[in-house]
Amino acid sequence: MSDPAKLLVAEVLSIGDELIHGSNLDTNARWLANLLELHGASVQRFTVVGDDPVQLESAMRDACTRADLVIATGGLGPTLDDRTRDVVAAIAGGPLWFHAPSWQLVQDYLGARQRPVPASNRRQAEFPPGATVLHNPIGTAPGFRLRLLRAELFAFPGVPREMKRMAEDWLLPHLNSLPSQQPVAQVCLCVLGPSEALLGERIEPFMVAGREPAVGITASGGLLTIRIVGRGRDAAAAAAACEGTAVEIRPLLADWLVAEGTEALHVLLGRRLLAANVSVALAESCTGGLLAAKLTEVPGISAVFRGGVVAYANEAKTDLLGVGAALLQQHGAVSEPVAAAMAKGAAQRLRARLGVSVTGIAGPGGGTPEKPVGTVCFGVCLDGVVTTWTRHLPDLGREFLRERAAFELLAAIFRNVPLPAETGRGAT
Amino acid sequence: MSDPAKLLVAEVLSIGDELIHGSNLDTNARWLANLLELHGASVQRFTVVGDDPVQLESAMRDACTRADLVIATGGLGPTLDDRTRDVVAAIAGGPLWFHAPSWQLVQDYLGARQRPVPASNRRQAEFPPGATVLHNPIGTAPGFRLRLLRAELFAFPGVPREMKRMAEDWLLPHLNSLPSQQPVAQVCLCVLGPSEALLGERIEPFMVAGREPAVGITASGGLLTIRIVGRGRDAAAAAAACEGTAVEIRPLLADWLVAEGTEALHVLLGRRLLAANVSVALAESCTGGLLAAKLTEVPGISAVFRGGVVAYANEAKTDLLGVGAALLQQHGAVSEPVAAAMAKGAAQRLRARLGVSVTGIAGPGGGTPEKPVGTVCFGVCLDGVVTTWTRHLPDLGREFLRERAAFELLAAIFRNVPLPAETGRGAT
Repeated sequence: MSDPAKLLVAEVLSIGDELIHGSNLDTNARWLANLLELHGASVQRFTVVGDDPVQLESAMRDACTRADLVIATGGLGPTLDDRTRDVVAAIAGGPLWFHAPSWQLVQDYLGARQRPVPASNRRQAEFPPGATVLHNPIGTAPGFRLRLLRAELFAFPGVPREMKRMAEDWLLPHLNSLPSQQPVAQVCLCVLGPSEALLGERIEPFMVAGREPAVGITASGGLLTIRIVGRGRDAAAAAAACEGTAVEIRPLLADWLVAEGTEALHVLLGRRLLAANVSVALAESCTGGLLAAKLTEVPGISAVFRGGVVAYANEAKTDLLGVGAALLQQHGAVSEPVAAAMAKGAAQRLRARLGVSVTGIAGPGGGTPEKPVGTVCFGVCLDGVVTTWTRHLPDLGREFLRERAAFELLAAIFRNVPLPAETGRGAT
Repeated sequence: MSDPAKLLVAEVLSIGDELIHGSNLDTNARWLANLLELHGASVQRFTVVGDDPVQLESAMRDACTRADLVIATGGLGPTLDDRTRDVVAAIAGGPLWFHAPSWQLVQDYLGARQRPVPASNRRQAEFPPGATVLHNPIGTAPGFRLRLLRAELFAFPGVPREMKRMAEDWLLPHLNSLPSQQPVAQVCLCVLGPSEALLGERIEPFMVAGREPAVGITASGGLLTIRIVGRGRDAAAAAAACEGTAVEIRPLLADWLVAEGTEALHVLLGRRLLAANVSVALAESCTGGLLAAKLTEVPGISAVFRGGVVAYANEAKTDLLGVGAALLQQHGAVSEPVAAAMAKGAAQRLRARLGVSVTGIAGPGGGTPEKPVGTVCFGVCLDGVVTTWTRHLPDLGREFLRERAAFELLAAIFRNVPLPAETGRGAT
């Protein structure tokens, strides 16, 4: 059982006007939370503040008062609205100091790229009193760490790839150096079928507050995920605790359970196609390349992904997929016969065993009384055998319809297409 | 000039284990921040907490102590890990009460969709003492509002489309009812070319803390954005204040300035193609459909977007785009001659005036000493005239390379392709 007294309480502070004024999404906190929890910290809060020095200082003080470990991202750039250094110096109670080697590294970095070295970059070599400089090998903004109030504070740049690299170089070794943290493990069960309430009733005894491991339900993009999060003396014990709960829950789910893990459905499907070595081709209309973009996120997918056609115009369906002009005329572009011809055409023209298609009306225009916005037809062609179906999705906007149509098709393939047994050719 | 004493200070609190444990991104806070600021509130902090009742109560107390207006999203579902109602009741100092009409609406909602009505949904009709129930027309979770500590608290469901609908139905009228708020306006200048530091030096006098309107720089996906944010007695005065600063900054930017507004580059390009009525076709290899997915986000784009080919396999390049097998053999798939043939093939086969292509090595595998991971070739064919070029992008991971390759191509078309003057056929 866990011992809360031993938990390392962590918080993430994301800094930037572009975040608080709503033009950019903060993706750093999520990534850091995963890293922190896997290494034994208990993440209790994320905070986002802008560049305003008063707000920033107040949020920094709050976080460093509540937590043992604070990771701050952003506000380390060269411009005057980058104020993390100044605010931390004010809390630490002393002036900034200049670190000549960091300034040299900035100059070398820009020089190697034949870029000018503005004098303003010099600000990036200034640090709060007591700070240890943390080298940034892939950018001009060094980070730093220091003891501030209750917390050990790590300040990293806000650019996600620089933040990730620095977390791996500097935060990870720190986490690994701490004695007797209780690592967190999680098991995620992916569920398709029931509503969230129905699933919640089925597993209600597991969802009470304070249960260890904790069990929760998340709905995202059509998929329900049961998250089992537990701790243990070491990683193996934490994993065993989660698995102990998973063993009790799985029989309650029957065929609702479609996968395990935190991967998105398209990643699960891509891995399965790779494992089964089934070549695949796509014919997309209303999803406009979204399915192809998702599937090609999977590293190594080129071993089975032949390609796709985004057939927006009717001529594209005819010219590139061989959909008959008469068929389009008779049934309309959004119809099961056309979906069938698209799936078959994709498989044939791209020489794939599996061809899948989606054609629908994503709006805002294009709907009719018989085929309102939200009407989507799907086709699957596996080894020449074609299946089609139609869904009437609620018209909750173009973005929703495109995403939901892509999800419906991924889920249908994932659940219903009998892929051959694994051949040992795994994902890379 | 603004009068800080009159500002309505707002915070956003996002609730859910899926957010704090790193499996989902919080997109609600950003959307709410935009809405709040446009209607005169000053957003000072976002907080994310999990479902743990102790942490949730502490974060709710903090936010409602600091701000005049708090928008909480999430934790209103039917399952036992949905605890916003309970935590607010505990702070308000009384038991939950049952609102029969809300329970009836939940039953009607599920009944109309032929879905079972689990008894656990009844929890969604319970509210903290003093709360006003807020109807949710597109889901089972009603929201509520009440005075809590310093704040007026609005609690909405976490599902983004339900949250947005309820914000429009309930929050917006509240904001509009408040006297003498100072609306915020913003002008965004999109810059391509300089580094962030170089741009910062150029506009340094505008970036001092406390300046009104405030000027900041954001880097996102390769584009730099100068944000000018100002307030005024009314919307027109706020806009005029921002424009007054923009007028001073624009001449400093010369040809770095490529667009104005907060839209992403693909939206700007889509609008321009629509305005110029130039038909477009895509041929993508390493970006795997990402360009097509981005361009088809733009409503009404079907008027000019003919379609695209995601040609992953060499056969797809030959069969669907007419790229000669000899060309592929001689130069390799990642080469300017192949990029040229792809762009030309896309334009011809999809009957478009503008054909664009991208072929590159996104990794992790596939690199060679001559063509390392990150090598990307681009092609543009406008009215039969072909241009090609090659970029050696830093190998900062598959996701980075795909996104950056798509951005490079969008930026190149946006800057360099001479689109005809507008014909009056606007975006829809």
